[in-house]
Amino acid sequence: MSRHPLWPFFDPASVAIIGASTDPDKLGGRPIRFLREAGYAGRIYPINPKVGEVQGLTAYAALADVPGPVDHALIIVPAAAAVAALRDCIAKGVRHVQVLSSGFAEEDEAGRERQAALLALAREHGVRLLGPNCLGIVSVRNHFHATFSTALEALSPQPGGISFATQSGAFGSCAYAQAIQRGLGIARIVATGNEADVDVAQAIDFLAEDEQTRVICAAIEGCRDGDVLRGALRKAAAAGKPVILMKVGASSRGQLAAATHTGAIAGDDRVFDTVVRECGAWRAATIEQMLDIAYLCTQFSMPANAQAGVLTVSGGIGVLMADDAERHGVEIPPIPGPLAASLRAQVPFAIGDNPLDTTAQIGAVKDGIAGLAGLLLRGTAWSTLCLYLAQIPCDERRFGPILASLAALRREHPDRLIVLVGPHSAPVREQVEAAGLAIFADPGRAMAAVGALCALAGRWRAPRGRTPSARPPALPLPQARFDELQAKQALAHYGLPILPERLCATPAEAAAAAREMGFPVAAKIVSPDIAHKTEIGGVMLNLADAPAVEHAHETLLARARRHAPEARISGVLVAPMSRPGTETILGVHIDPLFGPMVMFGLGGVAVELFQDVAFASAPLDDAGAEALIDSVRASRLLKGWRGQPALDTAVLRQALIGLSYLAVDWRAALQGIDVNPFVIRPDGAVCLDALITLNEAAA
Amino acid sequence: MSRHPLWPFFDPASVAIIGASTDPDKLGGRPIRFLREAGYAGRIYPINPKVGEVQGLTAYAALADVPGPVDHALIIVPAAAAVAALRDCIAKGVRHVQVLSSGFAEEDEAGRERQAALLALAREHGVRLLGPNCLGIVSVRNHFHATFSTALEALSPQPGGISFATQSGAFGSCAYAQAIQRGLGIARIVATGNEADVDVAQAIDFLAEDEQTRVICAAIEGCRDGDVLRGALRKAAAAGKPVILMKVGASSRGQLAAATHTGAIAGDDRVFDTVVRECGAWRAATIEQMLDIAYLCTQFSMPANAQAGVLTVSGGIGVLMADDAERHGVEIPPIPGPLAASLRAQVPFAIGDNPLDTTAQIGAVKDGIAGLAGLLLRGTAWSTLCLYLAQIPCDERRFGPILASLAALRREHPDRLIVLVGPHSAPVREQVEAAGLAIFADPGRAMAAVGALCALAGRWRAPRGRTPSARPPALPLPQARFDELQAKQALAHYGLPILPERLCATPAEAAAAAREMGFPVAAKIVSPDIAHKTEIGGVMLNLADAPAVEHAHETLLARARRHAPEARISGVLVAPMSRPGTETILGVHIDPLFGPMVMFGLGGVAVELFQDVAFASAPLDDAGAEALIDSVRASRLLKGWRGQPALDTAVLRQALIGLSYLAVDWRAALQGIDVNPFVIRPDGAVCLDALITLNEAAA
Repeated sequence: MSRHPLWPFFDPASVAIIGASTDPDKLGGRPIRFLREAGYAGRIYPINPKVGEVQGLTAYAALADVPGPVDHALIIVPAAAAVAALRDCIAKGVRHVQVLSSGFAEEDEAGRERQAALLALAREHGVRLLGPNCLGIVSVRNHFHATFSTALEALSPQPGGISFATQSGAFGSCAYAQAIQRGLGIARIVATGNEADVDVAQAIDFLAEDEQTRVICAAIEGCRDGDVLRGALRKAAAAGKPVILMKVGASSRGQLAAATHTGAIAGDDRVFDTVVRECGAWRAATIEQMLDIAYLCTQFSMPANAQAGVLTVSGGIGVLMADDAERHGVEIPPIPGPLAASLRAQVPFAIGDNPLDTTAQIGAVKDGIAGLAGLLLRGTAWSTLCLYLAQIPCDERRFGPILASLAALRREHPDRLIVLVGPHSAPVREQVEAAGLAIFADPGRAMAAVGALCALAGRWRAPRGRTPSARPPALPLPQARFDELQAKQALAHYGLPILPERLCATPAEAAAAAREMGFPVAAKIVSPDIAHKTEIGGVMLNLADAPAVEHAHETLLARARRHAPEARISGVLVAPMSRPGTETILGVHIDPLFGPMVMFGLGGVAVELFQDVAFASAPLDDAGAEALIDSVRASRLLKGWRGQPALDTAVLRQALIGLSYLAVDWRAALQGIDVNPFVIRPDGAVCLDALITLNEAAA
Repeated sequence: MSRHPLWPFFDPASVAIIGASTDPDKLGGRPIRFLREAGYAGRIYPINPKVGEVQGLTAYAALADVPGPVDHALIIVPAAAAVAALRDCIAKGVRHVQVLSSGFAEEDEAGRERQAALLALAREHGVRLLGPNCLGIVSVRNHFHATFSTALEALSPQPGGISFATQSGAFGSCAYAQAIQRGLGIARIVATGNEADVDVAQAIDFLAEDEQTRVICAAIEGCRDGDVLRGALRKAAAAGKPVILMKVGASSRGQLAAATHTGAIAGDDRVFDTVVRECGAWRAATIEQMLDIAYLCTQFSMPANAQAGVLTVSGGIGVLMADDAERHGVEIPPIPGPLAASLRAQVPFAIGDNPLDTTAQIGAVKDGIAGLAGLLLRGTAWSTLCLYLAQIPCDERRFGPILASLAALRREHPDRLIVLVGPHSAPVREQVEAAGLAIFADPGRAMAAVGALCALAGRWRAPRGRTPSARPPALPLPQARFDELQAKQALAHYGLPILPERLCATPAEAAAAAREMGFPVAAKIVSPDIAHKTEIGGVMLNLADAPAVEHAHETLLARARRHAPEARISGVLVAPMSRPGTETILGVHIDPLFGPMVMFGLGGVAVELFQDVAFASAPLDDAGAEALIDSVRASRLLKGWRGQPALDTAVLRQALIGLSYLAVDWRAALQGIDVNPFVIRPDGAVCLDALITLNEAAA
């Protein structure tokens, strides 16, 4: 198997430090000290024109003087000298270069230019660049501590399966410092800084292939290419490596000015949420949660279902954990009848079902707790067993034999999660982990982590790699802003039902059209330059006869002339009055990062007040459209609410699929689409109004 | 000041153990061992008829043989012997008795009877009873460890300001074990078990007066008397002692069968939430959260506002904490202009505003971090300053001087919260706490705790002790089930606007009434036995003329006879058609524990799908009614939504106040009330339908 292109960043056989300092506390000195203290086995080449030796190592005046090949170079020189240092790297044949120096795009316009020059040079010569303004890389198992982060002075990482990829070095330090303090083992740490070249998504892509990595903790602020992130997340999931993501800056992003309703709702970071979910990753709210989930991932394989048993030596905490389970989406099913009977036979004093309260009397039963745990594991298919042990883990004499029995159970059931809860010391935690189990002090945190893992596993089980639906041929990209009729015609091409409307130039034409359709009719002004017709009185409903229609035609033109004298008028649209139905909103938002997203929601307060909408990446197939509809809470109103007939969700699904293909085909030209309202009835649906907004390039 | 009646449970000068065991590991032996190990200074009297000495103490064959007075007795004998033991206590004049034995109401019917006998005997003789089936009491500062909980073998509590009152001993042990493990100081621990007499509410009442207690952590499963709990929570708040509550069993409670819509919505534990909020307590979701908040309470006084500054040595975590702040309701205001200028002058390299990122360069500035913290504290009124210190707390040489300066700031600003964040060892945490500050490892947990405390402080600042509104005279209790017209008349008495309706016996009477009102009218069947008229076609709308009204009268009577042949028919109600408006739902739920609660919500999906309703305890004054309305998300629709005119919320407030007094006056007879819809317009409102459901005793 070929190496990942980023591999030499993490496991080089040799590393040069350009800007090496003899002072082991200075920025240019620390990496050398850390590499030596960690016991890095590769060659370290300090580059320093002023001295012959740096921290006991032979120093070289220039990179060109280094005798052998150099796999990886750290540049820690003033920003102004960084381009020259990169040139040296290129001359020496170094293909992987970290620029730890600051003073680039994070600082000012001059810095941005320096960064652009750095990147251009690297691209020209096929050099991969990490940073600038980054904190470096740590490969724990390889003792490769190529960073100047002082976090490594205070806290020494132990090797393990968790890797960290963060944009912000500070965020990374905070996360891995917590991980180290709680005894979690670490594989790789990378902070990507300004991300001139390598970004967090690419780092995840590397970690997905990395055999030392079992679970990936990542934090991003921005994201340069949504599809690269998507690909990296999907690759990690396919490789069986959970990605626990945090997004920093959710609150400060604020509301984007948006031309469409859909865009305004997407303006919060719901699109990001959607993509994380679709790609089988998990979004954590705090570093502690991220590490709780990662901890379970290092100890267990992914749960096969979201069912858990709760075994407790004291009732109150069992009930609490059942509450927690409900909150976190973990099912606590009743114990199957025959198993319940045999449990009862063994421990007649036990109370309840699931949670099963052994009561303190279990202490008198030899191998009682583990015995019950074994019965539960053998007699059910629950993925997870949570054991609340009260203070037993603090009593080594009592806990030792229990742990030994649980360890045997763990070996017997390698696919199950056995999660202990109770106060414990660090040595007890280490014993528990060595036995392949996990332990938490707080019942709520244990269940939150179990719930997250079960939900993540559910995302992995959801069907992926869908076969695309039969799709209409792509319409050519629109060339100019266009009006409601054109918008609806485009939607109709993609399978969205519209009314048999007719654009009429004169009052007489309008009356004739209405006569043909049958009264009553509606009339609307049509203009590519009037996006919000109702605001200028551009819609007239329930026109009952020909004179009314003729009069409406005149009125609408007059209003348009008055309110928008410059607008190009396409004419007046005459349409039959639609039968009443349930109003929904279909939308497209072209996310600057993640591309075309389809939105669905129910009209009125559900969207306006409760933001009860959902997004999905385009294109959709039928299952995807159904999932999108179902993830909206108000969708219950479509499915036979309170004795009313079920509405035609087949037409709705087809409309969402068609809309998703329109979004894909027109991605380059679109800003967004609002189909509002899309009225659904038991026997069909119709798009009553549509707004297609083009981006500046197209409009 | 007189002692609280429960005081001798916690600080007795002498204690007898009835059922004392010579074996220090047995249930009857452990309390003696714990008391002696803890160094209890009072007299310990083991009662054991078989031996002369128990664990080195003189044993007495019977309680009567004890030479001096006994303040407090522990009964640890088999359940069947407990009543006899209580008799001995009464004979000896012991007024405070704990029954630690199990085998009572938690077990079976016989146990329930034993418990009832125990309680009756205690009541008869004015003895206060803790338990039975309880885990005991710990007063840390008094070295009074009157419990058999083995948690005290593993973990030794240090004296401090946090007290625990829990029903479940297991829950209590889990909570205080966590508290001990994280080094929190404890005042009192009490587990109330079966609560035959003393319950958690009464324990909170004691702790509210207890000078050793600064903050109360409590957990309840049920609750016997809502008003006692309310009183205890309010008393604690008035004494400046935060109560952090957990409710165990929220998920298992399930949906209660409810006769009213309001009751069905109240069936989850929203009433409990409401009461906790109204009484100035806080509800925590996990033990860890409870302890995080309690921790802040022991270190600081309550925050004066919900504004915080975030000072960080590294940008990424500052942004993260700003995200967290938003999520937890903490405002991160911009730094006032002049202060910002002087900060910038001192640290030109700092980035951002609030959060203020000092960058790592602050390390080169003498007293840099604390200096900035001081400027922020002096230059703003923000209640809280959060400092993210990265790994500095792990570096004693660097952290020592910073902590010393921060400690001085803390003394200078005793009303502020200074919360540090960063990885740290237990000794560092102790230093921080000794300096009067607090430290968290996880930024998210720090901000969650700050947010909870700020919100709790906000509840304390909310006006209490409202003057009651002018109220209508109480109507006499209803004597029997009654119909819509009677229901509306009762509501009208309490100030709710109703339509000028008339009950008509004959078609001619109905037509005459309609003529007088003006067409169109509505007609409805009226019967105390038909609660859901629409389901039997009992409502006919938009009757345009006299023949239509006459026909409707006949039709409605026919439908009632067909669908409810047994129903008593009051007649047909004729009413003018109401003008359209916004539909809201007003309701009353008589909670079995907390009494009359008023509900408000907007009609339709806001209530049905999103449970967007709020509750408040009755009676309400104008401010209470306004707060109730405002706590419903959809209330924005009432206040000039999207350019529509504002609706008449003054009438709405008046209606809620009136309804709340009806609820109070009829509490003994009511099960619930639905006023649905209550239609609000810009110029008034009207109650279109009402259902008053009486409880079984009254109906």
